[in-house]
Amino acid sequence: MDMFKLCVITDRRLAGDRSTPEVVEEAIRGGADAIQFRDKEATSGELLQEGLRLRELTAEKGVLLIVNDRPDIALAVDADGVHLGQEDLPAFAARRLMGPRKIVGISASDIALALKAQEEGADYVGIGAIYHTTTKQLTAPPRGPEFIRAFSGRLNIPFVPLGGISAQNVEDVVRAGARSIAVCSAVVSAPDVAEATRELKGRMMKAMEDQLT
Amino acid sequence: MDMFKLCVITDRRLAGDRSTPEVVEEAIRGGADAIQFRDKEATSGELLQEGLRLRELTAEKGVLLIVNDRPDIALAVDADGVHLGQEDLPAFAARRLMGPRKIVGISASDIALALKAQEEGADYVGIGAIYHTTTKQLTAPPRGPEFIRAFSGRLNIPFVPLGGISAQNVEDVVRAGARSIAVCSAVVSAPDVAEATRELKGRMMKAMEDQLT
Repeated sequence: MDMFKLCVITDRRLAGDRSTPEVVEEAIRGGADAIQFRDKEATSGELLQEGLRLRELTAEKGVLLIVNDRPDIALAVDADGVHLGQEDLPAFAARRLMGPRKIVGISASDIALALKAQEEGADYVGIGAIYHTTTKQLTAPPRGPEFIRAFSGRLNIPFVPLGGISAQNVEDVVRAGARSIAVCSAVVSAPDVAEATRELKGRMMKAMEDQLT
Repeated sequence: MDMFKLCVITDRRLAGDRSTPEVVEEAIRGGADAIQFRDKEATSGELLQEGLRLRELTAEKGVLLIVNDRPDIALAVDADGVHLGQEDLPAFAARRLMGPRKIVGISASDIALALKAQEEGADYVGIGAIYHTTTKQLTAPPRGPEFIRAFSGRLNIPFVPLGGISAQNVEDVVRAGARSIAVCSAVVSAPDVAEATRELKGRMMKAMEDQLT
């Protein structure tokens, strides 16, 4: 899999007046190299229409498009993959639907779930929540950046920390071992989405460079 | 396609205390020969679990299983097909996902939409609403049984009237030309689902026989 550094997760409510394609265009301009299209309120028809538009925007710029929860929509818009929570289809069912070449990402709130996802054919796991977030009602307290260290060397697939990651804390996240991250509110609710993405990505890349020296 | 006479559409809220598999088992016992599994509130994981159970129940009795809205769930549980409303994926997108052998049914509120669905590869169209119904908020007044006559001889695929059909009016529906019907509240909200299904199916079959003589 062509792995991403910064995945921006869409959110219709956080986007306010702006449409999801507008937000995505700005996030790509700011340096997002993957978009996770998430909209739990849209009808299937709306997901298809908007997904096709996001496919155009991402394909133009060589950015990955991953559809949340819905293998059917992912296939219908020819997205690069699907991301599934623990309430969605399990990895093995999604893999069967998506075929061997598409990305299957799974949310895992602990190492046991991450190992299970890996075994069932996931390409990456989303781990968290790392920090408090306004995007989702958390069912457990946030794990903090130490949680990321627990995954180092335990998986054969990449892990992607998420939950409350922002320009203010991304250095800690990278120092704890993250090579990819996913964000939503830090970017989607910002007044200037492109600028917020640029700042976050810049700090992330800087922290990764610092680690090499 | 192996066409059905009586399709029972599930509804979690109308089912009250009873689980969807319980309702389906009773509907099959009463003579339903197709089940449309519809649950707009369930998570994908719940749809998969319940869909697999309904697949067992229907397969045992040779009853068709059609999943509402979700080609991915239909494929994952190996249902016989998918049923799509006008807010869901269009027929051509569903056909591409489902392959040539699975049933694709489309809701059509007029003859133009029905012809479009037929052209895009639908196997049948659901037409209505015929009568007032408590299951769904109608966006247009009910069409009455005359609406069914308008479809006779206009399509090459079967049409399935639905919306408020019950034991009290099914004879009018058959006399207007219906050879298949779909029902929800008449059966699912009945205290005795099997008995309500049996009565409805009995009156339907009797009305069809009366037409032959």
